[in-house]
Formats: sequence, C-alpha cells, structure tokens
Amino acid sequence: MTLKTLFEAKSVAIIGASEKEGSVGRIVTANMLKAKFQGKIYPINPKYSHILGVKAYPSILEVSDRVDLVVITTPAKTIPAILLECAKKKIPTVIIISAGFKEVGEEGRLLEEKVLSICKEHGMRVLGPNCLGCMNPRIGLNASFAAGCGLEGKIAFLSQSGALCTAFLDWSLEKKLGMSAFVSLGSMSDIEWSDLLEYLEKDPHTEGIFMYVETISQAERFKEVAARVAKTKPIFVIKGGKTEASAKAAASHTGSLTGNDDLFSYAMKQLGICRINTIEQFFNIALFMAKEPNLKGRNLTIITNAGGPGVLSVDAAVKGGALLSKLSDQTFANLNEILPSCWSHDNPVDVLGDANVERYRKTVDLCLQDKNTDAVFVILTPQDMTDCTEIAKAVVESHNSHKKPLFVSWMGAQSVAIAKKIFNESKAIFFEYPDEAAETFGILSSHLEKLKMQRETQIEPSLMKEKKKNRFVHQSSTKILSETASKEWVFSEGFSVVRNFIAKTKEEAANLAEKIGFPVVIKLHSQTITHKSDVGGVKLNLKDPAMVKKAFEEIYNSLKNLGKEEAFEGVAVQKMILDKGVEVILGSKVDPQWGAVVLFGAGGEFVEVYSDRSLGLAPVSKAYALEMIKETKIYSVLLGARGRKPCDIEALADLLVKFSHFIFDAKEIDECDLNPLIVTSDGSIALDARIVLK
Amino acid sequence: MTLKTLFEAKSVAIIGASEKEGSVGRIVTANMLKAKFQGKIYPINPKYSHILGVKAYPSILEVSDRVDLVVITTPAKTIPAILLECAKKKIPTVIIISAGFKEVGEEGRLLEEKVLSICKEHGMRVLGPNCLGCMNPRIGLNASFAAGCGLEGKIAFLSQSGALCTAFLDWSLEKKLGMSAFVSLGSMSDIEWSDLLEYLEKDPHTEGIFMYVETISQAERFKEVAARVAKTKPIFVIKGGKTEASAKAAASHTGSLTGNDDLFSYAMKQLGICRINTIEQFFNIALFMAKEPNLKGRNLTIITNAGGPGVLSVDAAVKGGALLSKLSDQTFANLNEILPSCWSHDNPVDVLGDANVERYRKTVDLCLQDKNTDAVFVILTPQDMTDCTEIAKAVVESHNSHKKPLFVSWMGAQSVAIAKKIFNESKAIFFEYPDEAAETFGILSSHLEKLKMQRETQIEPSLMKEKKKNRFVHQSSTKILSETASKEWVFSEGFSVVRNFIAKTKEEAANLAEKIGFPVVIKLHSQTITHKSDVGGVKLNLKDPAMVKKAFEEIYNSLKNLGKEEAFEGVAVQKMILDKGVEVILGSKVDPQWGAVVLFGAGGEFVEVYSDRSLGLAPVSKAYALEMIKETKIYSVLLGARGRKPCDIEALADLLVKFSHFIFDAKEIDECDLNPLIVTSDGSIALDARIVLK
Repeated sequence: MTLKTLFEAKSVAIIGASEKEGSVGRIVTANMLKAKFQGKIYPINPKYSHILGVKAYPSILEVSDRVDLVVITTPAKTIPAILLECAKKKIPTVIIISAGFKEVGEEGRLLEEKVLSICKEHGMRVLGPNCLGCMNPRIGLNASFAAGCGLEGKIAFLSQSGALCTAFLDWSLEKKLGMSAFVSLGSMSDIEWSDLLEYLEKDPHTEGIFMYVETISQAERFKEVAARVAKTKPIFVIKGGKTEASAKAAASHTGSLTGNDDLFSYAMKQLGICRINTIEQFFNIALFMAKEPNLKGRNLTIITNAGGPGVLSVDAAVKGGALLSKLSDQTFANLNEILPSCWSHDNPVDVLGDANVERYRKTVDLCLQDKNTDAVFVILTPQDMTDCTEIAKAVVESHNSHKKPLFVSWMGAQSVAIAKKIFNESKAIFFEYPDEAAETFGILSSHLEKLKMQRETQIEPSLMKEKKKNRFVHQSSTKILSETASKEWVFSEGFSVVRNFIAKTKEEAANLAEKIGFPVVIKLHSQTITHKSDVGGVKLNLKDPAMVKKAFEEIYNSLKNLGKEEAFEGVAVQKMILDKGVEVILGSKVDPQWGAVVLFGAGGEFVEVYSDRSLGLAPVSKAYALEMIKETKIYSVLLGARGRKPCDIEALADLLVKFSHFIFDAKEIDECDLNPLIVTSDGSIALDARIVLK
Repeated sequence: MTLKTLFEAKSVAIIGASEKEGSVGRIVTANMLKAKFQGKIYPINPKYSHILGVKAYPSILEVSDRVDLVVITTPAKTIPAILLECAKKKIPTVIIISAGFKEVGEEGRLLEEKVLSICKEHGMRVLGPNCLGCMNPRIGLNASFAAGCGLEGKIAFLSQSGALCTAFLDWSLEKKLGMSAFVSLGSMSDIEWSDLLEYLEKDPHTEGIFMYVETISQAERFKEVAARVAKTKPIFVIKGGKTEASAKAAASHTGSLTGNDDLFSYAMKQLGICRINTIEQFFNIALFMAKEPNLKGRNLTIITNAGGPGVLSVDAAVKGGALLSKLSDQTFANLNEILPSCWSHDNPVDVLGDANVERYRKTVDLCLQDKNTDAVFVILTPQDMTDCTEIAKAVVESHNSHKKPLFVSWMGAQSVAIAKKIFNESKAIFFEYPDEAAETFGILSSHLEKLKMQRETQIEPSLMKEKKKNRFVHQSSTKILSETASKEWVFSEGFSVVRNFIAKTKEEAANLAEKIGFPVVIKLHSQTITHKSDVGGVKLNLKDPAMVKKAFEEIYNSLKNLGKEEAFEGVAVQKMILDKGVEVILGSKVDPQWGAVVLFGAGGEFVEVYSDRSLGLAPVSKAYALEMIKETKIYSVLLGARGRKPCDIEALADLLVKFSHFIFDAKEIDECDLNPLIVTSDGSIALDARIVLK
C-alpha cells in the first residue's frame, strides 16, 4: 500500500487536539494551521466545540467526510480503542506521536503488540509510535509537534532520532534548506525504511534522501528497495554505533574478520548508498543537494585570497574525492587579463590578499564560465582592506547569472556575519571552514559521479538473484565439518579444490597417488590428532609410488613410537600444488541482520594481522565482486607485482560471484572458508576448505 | 638572543606611520593606540609633526630614547637604508610588514639578501618580511595591521599564513579566546619556529602553542627545540600539502615507503607535537586550551537530552582518543534521585527529551562532582518544551561553581543563538556539532595525557645523541654496494647478519661451509647475473661437505649448459637459517629536510603491498623505538600470534635504537636496508643487507 495518504493527505484529523498551553495536541493543531495546510483539518476532542478557531468533533466517527490521516497525541493506553474507531472509519494512515510503548517495558510492549494487530487487521499503516510526526511543506502538511515547519524543497529527511529532526529543522530554517518530506520514524513499529523509500522513489518532488539510521529492520526487503531507489535518487546515511561490542565470536577467519559496523558500511556501499561520518557533513551535504541538485561532476575550481586556506582545501577536496579542474587556456588568458601578474597561475586561483570586489566578481565570472569546471569554490579571509560583505554580494550576483554550482567559505566570525546571511539567502552554499567545505564537495560529487557512471554503463543490479537450482542438502551430525567433508561439498558445487582421498594401506595410498598424479602430499588421517605436523604426520612432494609407500610407513612408525598407534586411521592423499600463486581467501558467514555475507581478502598465515579484505552481501554482482577485489591491497599482487604473471581478475570475480550464489542458496551453511585459495595466471584452486553448519 | 624586545617591547617606533586613510602605516599606528600599548610609541615620518595625536619624528635617529622594536611599513626598496639607520640606533628587533621581496622574483630575492646581511651584521632580529606583524595583548602591543587586537590570554598563535591569522583573530574575538602571543611569520627570513618556541618556552603567560606551518626551515634545530618545549607546553600543528608530489623516487624499499607528508606526521609524533587535520579542530582545540588549560584526564561524561546525538558523540569521542567515564556508585545513586526512572542509567546520561532547566542543572552538578569524571560534555537538542536559553544559563552557573572543564553543543541554529552567546561569554566551550566536540576533546585530552605520562615516567629524550665513536669511513666506486659489501659493513658495526663467504672452488666452498657450520646455502657469485635462482644458481639446506661440492658442480654445470660459463665467478656460502621467525625490515634513508630517517616494518615479499611500517628521525630513543614497533600490525605476530613463541620486543627496540645511531653517524650512507631481518624468540639476524651511498 502506498503512503500517499500520509504525505499527500487531503484531510487530517488530530485526536487529542487541545487548546491547553504546551500540550502536544495543541502544538500539532497549531502547526497544521500555521503551515497553511491545503486540505481539511478535524480536531478531535469531546471537550471542545472549537479548537484554535476550527470546529472540533467529539470522535473521529462524527466526521462525515473522508479522512486520510489521523494524528494521535493521547496517552498510550487510550490508543487501542481509538484505533478501533479509526478502523470503523476506514482510516488508511495513522501517526502515533504518543510514547509509552515498548520503550517503557513489558506492559508497553504488550500494548504495542495490540496496537499493531488492530492496524494490521484493518489495513491501517502506522508511523511511530513515539515520534515527532511528519511534514510535507509543499502542501502545508505539518503533522508534527516540532517547533515550526520546514521550507518547501527537494530533499527528504528521515530520522530515527526525533531530536536530530528538531536540530536539523532549526538549522534548515537558518540555511533556507527546503524539504520535500520530513519524517520522524520513532519506534518504527510499522512504517519503516523500505516503505518510505518506495514512496519517495516515485515522488517527483524528491531529489535526494537523507537518513539517520539506528537499525535496519527488514534487511532482506531493504536490500532490494534501497539498491533500486539509490540508482535514481541519491541516498545518504548517517549511523552511530561504531563502538558497540562486536558480533558474537565465530569459528572461522571470516567470522573474526567482519564487524557489525564495518559490515554496515560495506552493505551501504554495495547498495549504492553514501555513508556519511559526521553530523556536520550530513547536514552540509543535505544543504548542497537542496540548493544545487544539478551537480554535474567533480572538477572543482578554487578561488581564494589566501594561500594557506587554499592548500588545506586542496588536501581536503582530494581526500573527499574531488578533482582539481584543469582550467582551459581561454580561462587562463582571461584571468591573466584581470589579475595582478603575480596571481597563482594555477588552480587554486589565488587572487591575492588585496583582492577587491571587482577582482573577485570577475574571477568568479570567468571560473563559472570555464568549460572544465563543474563547480566553483570561493574562499575569503578578512584581510586588511577586504570588504567581506560587498564581495559576498558580487559573488552572489555573478553566481545568479550562471547555472553552475558555487559554494563559499568566508572565514572568521564578526567580520563575515552579514556575508553569511547574504549567502544563506542566495543559491550559494555557505560553509564555516574551507577545508570542511572542500571535503564535503568531494564526498558528494564523487558519489554522484559514481551513480551517474553506473547508470550510463547500465551496470547489472548489485544484488542479482538467480533461479535456485535443485541442490543436495547436506546432513551432518557435527556442526563443524571435517576438511575432507568440506572439500567434497565445495567440489560437488563445482569449485576447484585439492581433494583428499583416504587410504588405509600403503598400497592403497600409492594407487590413489598414481590416479591423482604426482607429486602428492600425504597427511595422517585421524579424528583425534589435530596438529598433524607435530607428530610427523605430513609428507610433502612425493614423486613416485615408492616414496608414497615409504612416507606412509614413516607416518605410521612415527605414531607407533609416540604410543599413539590407535589414532592412526590411514592417510589422506592429495595433489601437491607446485605453482607459487597468490594466496587469497573466499569466505562467508551468516549475519543475523543482513543474511549471508561474503568476504574476499588476502589469505595465508597473516590473514588476521592485516585484515586486508572486503565484504559483500550475498549474492554479489560481477561489478561488485570486481570492486571487492580491487579494494584490497593484495589486488596489486594479483595484477602481477614483484615479477609475477598477472592473474585473471575477471575469472576470480566470476568465482566470487559463483561462491556468493552457492552461499546464498545453501541455507544450511553458517560459515564457509576457502583458505588459502591459490590464484595463478592459469586459474585458481583451494588448498583447504572449512564449512560450519547452522 | 632572546625575543624579549619583540614580545615585551617597552618602546615601539613605526616607520612609515601615516594619517593616510587605509595606509598600512596608519593602521599599525592606530592599532598600537587602540590596544592601549603600555610603553612608548614613536611614529616615524618626516611629513608629519603629529600622527593620530602622537608626536612624530622625521627619522629613527631623531628619537632620543631607547627603542626596542621598529615596525617598518614602507616600500621594500626603501628598507635597506632604513635598516642602516636602525643599526646606528642599535635597534634589537625589527618587524618588516612590507612585501616585495623573494616572493616577487630575482630582484626581490637580492633585496631580501641585502636586508638580511645588514641585520646579521648589526645583530638585529627580523620578523617577516611580508607579514601581518605580531601582538602581545597583555601589554597592549598590537604591532600589526590586523583588524583589531586579540584578547589577553594563555595561548600563542603562530602562523606562516597571514590570512589564517586574520581569520583566527576574528573568530577568537567572537569566542572570547585569549592569547599570550600572536605572530605572523611571513617569509620567515630570520626569526623562525625555533626562535619563537625558545621564547615561548620561558614565557610564563603561555600555556599552549598553535602553529600553522608551511615549511620547517631549520629542521636540525627544530628537532631539539621543539622536542624540549613540547614536554612542558603542548604544541599543536596544522600543515597542508598532503597531496604534493612525493619525494624523489629512491632505490630501496625504505625510499618508496616514506612520503614527505607522512614523514612530517611521524616527525611531529616523535617530537611530542600533536598534528591536527582540520581548521575547525585546530581552532577549537585552541579555544579549549585557552578556556580550560587544566584538563586533567580523558574520562568524559556526556549529558544529553537525545539518544541519537549521544551515540554519534560516543563514537567520535572514542575515535578522538577519549574514554567514557565510569560514573561512581555515589553519582549513580544521586542521579537516580533526580532523574525520571527511565533515564539511560549509563554514560551518556540521557536526561530525556522533556528535560527542563532544573533537571539539566542538577545533572550537570552531579556529573561535575563525579570523582571519575575529568570533563563534562552537555548536549542539547531543541525539542518540544526545551528552554534552550535558560538551560544554557543554568549550565553556566553550575559550571562556575566547579573547577572541572565543561563543553557543550546546543544543536540547531535560531533556537540556540542566544545560548551560543551565553556560552561564548562563559568559561564553557561551545561547539556547533556534538560529534565534532567529542572528537576534539578526545584528541586534546589524549595528547595531554600522553605528555603527562611522559613527564611522570621521566622518559628519556625522544632524540638522544651519543658521542660519536671513531668509525671506519667506507669508500666505494659505486653508489649501490653489493650484498656482500653491504653485509660486511653492517656486520662490522655489530649487527647480526648472515654473512657471505666467496669460494672459487668446490673444495673452498666445502671448507667454508664446515667453518660456518651446517646446513648452508650456496649461491652463484656473479657480477653479471642478477636473478640467480632463474639459472639454478641457488642451493638450499646443504647438510654436509659432499652436498656442498655437488651443489657447486650443479651450479657450474647449469651455467655451462646455458652457455654462460664466463659469468661464473664462484659461489657465496652462507649459513642456512632454519628458524621460522618473523620477517621484518629495518631501513633508513636521508630526507633532504629532516636528515636520516629510520623505518621499522613488516618485511618479506609483500613489504610494499601492506606498507605496514612506522618512521622515526634518527637517532630514536628506546621509548620511541618501542612506539614504532607497537604501531605496526606485525607487532601482534612478534608478540606470538598463531602459536609462535613471543619475540623479545625490548631487544628488537634496542636493535632499532642501535641501527638509528649507526645511520645517524654514518654520514656517507644515503639508504640502508636490513631486509628481511628474521626475528625469533632467541634473537634476530638479517638475511640480506643493502646500502646505497650518497
């Protein structure tokens, strides 16, 4: 069901509306009136005939017209009865602002369950409970108890923290940042991320989506919906909890190499969502998107009247992901005409400390016209003769006669206070600190460029599901499978692996070796002895049947000498891999929230020391598999560092895709490692495999 | 010579003083008057009898009293003649504000040289040229053309960018940040970092030093002075240029593993200086130090009326280096008394969305009293009934009755504008964003704690020079020494290394092997063939004389078969190291700025892939050597990961110290690598060595 009756409500009833000073019911009613709601408002309260000048009704059932949205502000325990009335009235959407549910303990939890079951039974959608409400400024809908209504605009702001909503709203009013939607999700008992994203995907007024996330409730659905929406409307996320205790310890390498928060970062990346790390950047990117949704690229031209802040901004821009524009020859020639001879002759364009209004104006004009520039960043420091305010006016005028994005940082405080106001009222984006500005631009522009590239190359979906094949379901009495059993399983799925063959006698071992092909390795086969090399149980590089037989005897004798004869159950014979390839790991584990997760990384002895690895939600697309591989440091070795022949990266990515599908389909597997997987220029083979069942 | 006549001048002459609107000479004179300079002011200009009401003099020679400081604002070309007059008058210190020297080309450079030689000859110290000037607000000294004078206070602000000076000054006035010194270094032709640090070290009014650095001019002196000063007065540095092209390519691993900017970071760390990455943090830490120089530790208690910003702040605090205080039982009990039952019962102390003035006041009181808390951070989001202004007043009142540092973030804009002013006027430190605040606190408090620990443990100086021993100076016709020559050199310096012994015949080889002890390795000795293993030129694990002789023949025959008989010059015999230790690298190179630099890191094949290494300026102290080792990831392996016996880290640190002294003293060496150095629980030995001469 769509959320149109939430965001585009034509009639809103407020249950608990009141004239009582400071009551939530009064604030909501006043907010609706102040925002000049374009539809009808029905305050509901049996104690009043009119509330704030609007006719009031004793009950929702007394309203004869259709009502799209009901806002409930009465105490939690009154709500089930109210909802039954709403159901009778066939209300499609309800906002429960009231708190007092699961956050207050067991009693509240039961009450919330009751509320949800009523809504589910009657097909009502609920925002909240325990939320601030929501807004659509374009139609004057302010169904919230926030202090004021946001401005009309192009970005959607969604938050699980009501407090962050109020702070952002206050900030947005000063910055003149306009919103298409503003939603406090509260406890997120019913309406959750995917519902909102699906609505905003089709909302023509929304061009960017900003989410403060505490939890992703329905990860499976979110993966599909978010990946789809992010392709057309940029999504930005901020999420806390980096320092929370890691997920449960796990038995495999993959287990110890994934962390909850890290996994969240990878999930966002895979879904095409940009994760932002600080509130300041989150707010500023929202401001940028709201004022300049048409950023075309990441080539930045910096204009400054001071070298120092220019240098720091270049560092920050590059760190964020921007490029410095290579100014065209024409622009250079034009700048030479208007600037003193000792200008920087480079980007940043240093207009020098004595730059006046006209010099700034002309330089901004020329840079905005430059064909290699996607955006212009103007820095001003209040020097000797600098007229901060007049230069601000000139920059705004110049910007108004061009279509290109422009942002500014006027450094200082008192000297630039008026300029700041001028910029806030203009299309230009004002930042307090130049390096912060430059980094923010870098993050935003590089994310937008990545999305654009993906659209242009019509890249395959980041999550790709195939029809499941009929597969053998493995049964085992133990959770951790033996090396041999693990290997047989992945082998049966078509993965290249060094198989183990068990031999009980030396003749059997020699025969098996001949079948496998020399050279071979033989290892003690024993359920009880785990450290096989410590008891002389591993023999490498056996080149003929005689050597195999001798090695078999040596292993047996070694055990006999240790008095451990009874532990000898034969030997495992396997091919000896002579190719000195690159050791990598393919791994997987099932995350309680995200489901099956795959890992690619450097393998071998120090796999945990360097944590050189990347993660993905299974199944991964070929494009994302390539991204995963390229992100690691071992990638440079795979490319042929240190005189090696380059490995076939495409084939390795295909293998990773195949592995991710295997893991996604094999619902009985909890963890699976192929480690080490030896990759050479000719292909790859796993030397070891390990499977842990759920 | 001390800079007392600069900072504590009792009489100041301004050459070029003027009444002309907008002239630098007028601004400087007006600044001195406005700041209520406590000494005497002598405007110098033959055109005036009085300037801005003060008696003017036609020339400095006409002033009969002693003059401590002369500020020159006249054009560059007039300055040499002026300086000769100053010399005659025995002026100790001069500020040259005027530009027009080396920054404008060859002519300017020659003029600057002239100026400097006059000053040097007559023992005059010069600040500038091309600078904004300097201030000491405490005595009303504003010898600058900045717009206004800073407030009196405890921090020194030094900058190579005049523009950053003006921006900081403007900002400091709004924030009520007081300064003990404010210096624009300009071209830094004479007075430079070490001069200023040496003065500030002894200045009782300075408690923290903030430097915007573009270049370190005299690195050798800076190393000594800065390391000493940083021990008693915290130093903070911001420096741009991270994206500048790397240093010249170098022949060794160490060469490619060090980068200019990275080396700067390590140098600061080693000297005990805290490098800050953003202007915002740099300014905010200055504000913190100015308002709260007595921060005792890094245990932070967070009070918030909203969960979301609290979580983001915890992440940021921990990232910065802070700890979350464990509130005492007493504090818990007291909080339980005054807070609603559903408060967070943890740090952050969530006082809930409906927190009013009294709840905030009491909570702040209790947390400031908590014995486990070093600082309190109060977050407010403007919710429903939140009285942002009154709560700010209450927090300030509570803070005023305690001695503990307190900082705040009132989120939003319009709703918190008055509160922001209240905080700026108070002892409390105001931040725009809570996560930024928390991270800033973390960076500052952890740096101060580190300095404190170093003082308390009376740690040895970070740079420790020994008397040089008489050492053999190596002569060579080639810059890159052979493996054998490199090994002999480091062996002669007392480093444990697998030595090579050259044998021309198989008998010689067998004899050498017996002398060395079995097993041995023999390798082809040839000036022309570099990839010895490709031609079958390496034989490992030879256990007796017969095997050695056979191996010698095989190598010879292998070359003969390839038709490369003439390239055979015998074999190198060396001990075979069987211990499977940890491979590390000790390396060094000479940096053009900092001199000899040592490197410690993971060794072996993938040394460049993981760049797992740390750097230090030679010679390093034992304490810093330990820091270098502990910073790497391979450290966990050295500690005995994956079932290994732990290595002797102390001994390894001693080796690194010894290596750094060797490299510091051997002035003819440009680069030196011991790679791999095999470290076991019993000691360490270098398998290979490589020396490149200057």
